[in-house]
Amino acid sequence: MSSAASAVAARLAQLAAIGRRASGIRRLAATPEEFAARALFARWSTAAGYSVTQDRIGNVFAARKGTKPGAAAILVGSHLDTVPTGGAYDGAYGVVGGLCALELLDALGATTAHPVEVVAWFGEEGSRFPLGCLGSSVFADLVSAEAALALSDDAGVPVGSALRAEDGGWLPGVAWRTPNKTAAYLELHVEQGPVLERAGAPLGAVTAIAAQRRYQAVVQGGSGHAGTVPMDQRRDALCAAAEIICALEAAAKSVGQCVLTVGRIAVEPNATNVIAGRAEFSVDARSADAQRIDALEEAFHAASTAAQERRGVRSHIERLEAREAVAMDAALREGLYRAAASLGEQPLAVASGAGHDAMCLARVAPAAMLFVPSIGGLSHVPDERTAEKDLELGVNVLARWILEVDRLLRAH
Amino acid sequence: MSSAASAVAARLAQLAAIGRRASGIRRLAATPEEFAARALFARWSTAAGYSVTQDRIGNVFAARKGTKPGAAAILVGSHLDTVPTGGAYDGAYGVVGGLCALELLDALGATTAHPVEVVAWFGEEGSRFPLGCLGSSVFADLVSAEAALALSDDAGVPVGSALRAEDGGWLPGVAWRTPNKTAAYLELHVEQGPVLERAGAPLGAVTAIAAQRRYQAVVQGGSGHAGTVPMDQRRDALCAAAEIICALEAAAKSVGQCVLTVGRIAVEPNATNVIAGRAEFSVDARSADAQRIDALEEAFHAASTAAQERRGVRSHIERLEAREAVAMDAALREGLYRAAASLGEQPLAVASGAGHDAMCLARVAPAAMLFVPSIGGLSHVPDERTAEKDLELGVNVLARWILEVDRLLRAH
Repeated sequence: MSSAASAVAARLAQLAAIGRRASGIRRLAATPEEFAARALFARWSTAAGYSVTQDRIGNVFAARKGTKPGAAAILVGSHLDTVPTGGAYDGAYGVVGGLCALELLDALGATTAHPVEVVAWFGEEGSRFPLGCLGSSVFADLVSAEAALALSDDAGVPVGSALRAEDGGWLPGVAWRTPNKTAAYLELHVEQGPVLERAGAPLGAVTAIAAQRRYQAVVQGGSGHAGTVPMDQRRDALCAAAEIICALEAAAKSVGQCVLTVGRIAVEPNATNVIAGRAEFSVDARSADAQRIDALEEAFHAASTAAQERRGVRSHIERLEAREAVAMDAALREGLYRAAASLGEQPLAVASGAGHDAMCLARVAPAAMLFVPSIGGLSHVPDERTAEKDLELGVNVLARWILEVDRLLRAH
Repeated sequence: MSSAASAVAARLAQLAAIGRRASGIRRLAATPEEFAARALFARWSTAAGYSVTQDRIGNVFAARKGTKPGAAAILVGSHLDTVPTGGAYDGAYGVVGGLCALELLDALGATTAHPVEVVAWFGEEGSRFPLGCLGSSVFADLVSAEAALALSDDAGVPVGSALRAEDGGWLPGVAWRTPNKTAAYLELHVEQGPVLERAGAPLGAVTAIAAQRRYQAVVQGGSGHAGTVPMDQRRDALCAAAEIICALEAAAKSVGQCVLTVGRIAVEPNATNVIAGRAEFSVDARSADAQRIDALEEAFHAASTAAQERRGVRSHIERLEAREAVAMDAALREGLYRAAASLGEQPLAVASGAGHDAMCLARVAPAAMLFVPSIGGLSHVPDERTAEKDLELGVNVLARWILEVDRLLRAH
């Protein structure tokens, strides 16, 4: 059983070489690096004897047959794209780990009534195109394929062109997937936070994925010469933005059980000797409790209004995205506890602050997630790491979880 | 007398078309737009009968002969480059106004003992290369030509290559200037601040150019996933930078009689869903009183240290440039008051918060400056404007000032 599981670290290392730069791994959606990662996943899957298919939004599936004709599929998966300077585990672990789990079932001689498909979802990070979980959103019919293919990156390149423009945007010679019902969705993922490590727990059973809101804020002030405009006559857009950012951080700390991040900022004209006339920044707020996000949003508007009144700037807040918290399926979680118990483990119940493709899948099928610890809680950085024994344990538990879920589905 | 002076607005409009974009005028040093502006100045000067020369750093001179053989030159000038989204008057007015003043002397049939040269200094703004007043610094031997030509822009292009790379980096067919002593330097400029307008004064006699220090600050924090790192475990580089920026603004207001500007900021990785791991920003501090800049620098270090201690980030401050306050020559200023009085005007004594090429020239010759008002105090912005009658008055006064200075120099 351990040999199929132990392949996981070696394969992740092989994947990590695709898009590696000094600043981290860069495999943005619909770039040659991301195509190469999908192609590698398809090669591994074909070599293992699974039938590989793809869909129009670039999701790739590797199917292990079930014994019951016409049964809906158990999907297991995650994504292969990364943030601009990412690590080797976020997303990739769920795809590679899923593949290793299927091979483990082969090694165990285990069969399932339902076919089991490992899926690599397209464009989960939302780092290039203005929407995350693109592939799973289209799969779950939350966004139409046409709308998704029409979304453009900052350079004005639509998803559809980026997929078509390069060889391998869709995998050459790979069949289109025949639509099939989804019986259940299981996602294996690194925690990306410090909770499991601090608790000394090697496994986490996700209770819910936190609600998330994303905003774009624009502060329009007055530009001018850095040497000649007296301090009390300035309408400095960057000073106003800095004040709002400080207020947002303080609000997140005081509201509690939530996180808020300003990760992007741009000012104009962005010159040393010119007062900033315009500042634009992103705000990302998350909590398992929607009321706390409401409180953050209120604080955001208050800080923005205060800046307007005191500084004579105009401040505009646009809410780009609002995702409700998504509870994970209770029966699937029960199955996970049984699978883990068979290996002498008891997962810790944790909420996920990060969003995942499982949020979308939960709209069309029972969905649940299994976490393994992130060393130092680090993720979305080049130093992201998970201990090899935890990676292997995750695969071992996932394989048994698949069998539990297959049994559970047959019982219904 | 007024016809030569009235050409000034039309010529400024013609220059303003070079590099005009929706966001303002963009004529950065050693770009095709800046070459075109220099070439236009050379054409006007040649057409007016002045001999045009240039030097290796891209300064262009238009000389009107003097009557005394071998006499040192009276230089009159400013610059033709702009900030990234600039206006039509900053710099350009001093070059075009100088040319119009020479033509006015022709129209008046006035001769001078000393030759008078109008000069367009290269790269005053420091918006592209990391040092301002490049051309006048080399001219005044404050920086060697080799060192100046080796300075690189953000894309790694050195001044020397940028000047050579494009046709016209040095003006084709224009002779190299024969070194000549500088008898005096006069600079006509828009005020770029609100003082003259508020006082209802159409002319300003500059007493001194404020001291200026420029810094680069780097905050190194810890990157991480926006959804999973609890607020109390973050080392968010942008939050730390925002706090320092707010502290700097408060310090400038409390110290008084100084200005401080954070005009540039960049964070990494600059993604919505990733905590900023690194922030870099510029600081520009100015005052006619060096002790006030010392106080700002102290506040800067205190804010940086506080951020380090409270937030676990590393914060580094580098002082890139420190310019002492430069007093304008008293005898030249006397000459200016006499020239203005002959037209019934009395300039207001003002300090310049902005830096100018006159700072460099003051190191090798007596130097002084004449200001005209900026409407609304605006400068370094597309809306920068000066009333046409003020532009013409400036030219009329400058022509008479040249005659006063020529007389003054002969008397010594």
